[in-house]
Amino acid sequence: MREFDLINRFFRRPSPYASGVDVGIGDDGAVLSASPGMDTIVVTDTSVEGVHFRSDQSPHAIGYRALAVNLSDIAAMGALPRWATLNLTLPHADPEWLSAFADGFFELADQWAVTLVGGDTTRGPLTMTVTVGGEVARGASLLRSGARVGDMILVSGPLGGAAAALECSNQANLERVLQYPTPRLMLGQSLLGVATSAIDISDGFLADLQHILDQSGNLGANIDASNLPLFDAAVQSLGREKALDLALRGGDDYELCFTVPPEKLPLMKQLKSDVDSSPICVGKVVSKGGCRVHGIGDRYERSGQGYQHEW
Amino acid sequence: MREFDLINRFFRRPSPYASGVDVGIGDDGAVLSASPGMDTIVVTDTSVEGVHFRSDQSPHAIGYRALAVNLSDIAAMGALPRWATLNLTLPHADPEWLSAFADGFFELADQWAVTLVGGDTTRGPLTMTVTVGGEVARGASLLRSGARVGDMILVSGPLGGAAAALECSNQANLERVLQYPTPRLMLGQSLLGVATSAIDISDGFLADLQHILDQSGNLGANIDASNLPLFDAAVQSLGREKALDLALRGGDDYELCFTVPPEKLPLMKQLKSDVDSSPICVGKVVSKGGCRVHGIGDRYERSGQGYQHEW
Repeated sequence: MREFDLINRFFRRPSPYASGVDVGIGDDGAVLSASPGMDTIVVTDTSVEGVHFRSDQSPHAIGYRALAVNLSDIAAMGALPRWATLNLTLPHADPEWLSAFADGFFELADQWAVTLVGGDTTRGPLTMTVTVGGEVARGASLLRSGARVGDMILVSGPLGGAAAALECSNQANLERVLQYPTPRLMLGQSLLGVATSAIDISDGFLADLQHILDQSGNLGANIDASNLPLFDAAVQSLGREKALDLALRGGDDYELCFTVPPEKLPLMKQLKSDVDSSPICVGKVVSKGGCRVHGIGDRYERSGQGYQHEW
Repeated sequence: MREFDLINRFFRRPSPYASGVDVGIGDDGAVLSASPGMDTIVVTDTSVEGVHFRSDQSPHAIGYRALAVNLSDIAAMGALPRWATLNLTLPHADPEWLSAFADGFFELADQWAVTLVGGDTTRGPLTMTVTVGGEVARGASLLRSGARVGDMILVSGPLGGAAAALECSNQANLERVLQYPTPRLMLGQSLLGVATSAIDISDGFLADLQHILDQSGNLGANIDASNLPLFDAAVQSLGREKALDLALRGGDDYELCFTVPPEKLPLMKQLKSDVDSSPICVGKVVSKGGCRVHGIGDRYERSGQGYQHEW
């Protein structure tokens, strides 16, 4: 199959949402017009076979996930997504695989009115890079750097599910968390003007929280382990201690971790019913550097490193 | 080396140009503000080891080229580049390689005031995706679809050099064309309001011209082979016939091919001295479909396929 045939067959779809997209797939570049009064948010993530997904995984899930991890970053900025580019490197062009991959990608794209505006297809080891552009009111983005001493630390849902899925197979619920992460875009919208900082948990809760603490001026955190939301299936299969360990240090959760001043905490309990998660308070920002996890001894102090690529 | 160390050491550089970049590397996404009255142009290209570059090639050239091929797309839209993201997949982290790669990338980025605003580093087979955002006055982009019957067809410089470099080693001039393509950004600016269509020649002259003809309403072209600019080194090493063949069908030229109405042709001869190329008229758009190359027999008629990935 030739490159242009492949693009036309699988990736050029009519897009009814394309406001602001003047030229999409098919020219040297996409032509986009920003909405007045809005900032553009650009995020990008690469997924590599054998690192981010397994070769035997469903192509539908691989396509869905490649977009989902980017939308999770958009959510963490408090933005809504508008357009995406897809760079797909393929060892061979299997129409069945490509069709399912595209279906997975567009299932999520359609859900959030994201227009695929361009990309690149190349021959090589199976790898994909998705770049997403979103919008948020000028100056309103949720950054990592705004946490203040006294803020409460919240997470948008149970942690450690994706890491637990890798430890115990045959757990359909956990497998779904790993393969089909839900970007918390509605929650991200609700956090505008409420949260002082936000990040999406991709490298592990402690590691990502550490980014907030570092970038907010070397602050610290006290975490109450007994409040950390876990997956029942993980606790049942692996025991509470292991499930808690994975919730603290596992990666690929794609929940949001964010900070809220105590006086705004009641707003979190009044989230609209269409918001896609129920945030839970797990700790507090303090001035003393380091991250202390209470309720399981001191062994996590200052050891908050999650998943980083290491060479 | 850990991921964050690698980013901080090689890719986080102070950027004096960053107007419109409110948040760059280091958050979940970059925060960008579009200039009033401008469209945003987004282009993206992936480079794979063994396909787009050789493993023994200089990392400086690989870094330069990964950005250059994207800036060439920006030039073909008549835009100027503003920001870039870099997704780098690496089998191992060799500081010397990374340092030279980053130097090559930033050499070109600095030349065009492009700010690196984000990206991703992952472990895996050597692959890189660069995405670039540029700006052009609203509605002024050069598209592939505007050519009209009677327009003259021009190219921005000699063709076939990169393809010739692959055929004959030890030709430093040709090797430089292959490894360090020059994006024709100044020329792209001069074409605004002058050219009716434009494309950058990455897949081969005839193949890329065919995109213009197809997208402008299934038009055709008469090309005069004797006007096609060739590299002296290619003619000397490979003979005129082979050099011409590579100019017509070789890829990776990264010159612009564009169409200009005859009455505006004199403007092409008055290009400012700071423009980076001297366009040459090589043919004419006609209503009869297909591309006829005169001066070398009829064998190129309708065979205008250049480089496409094929699986």
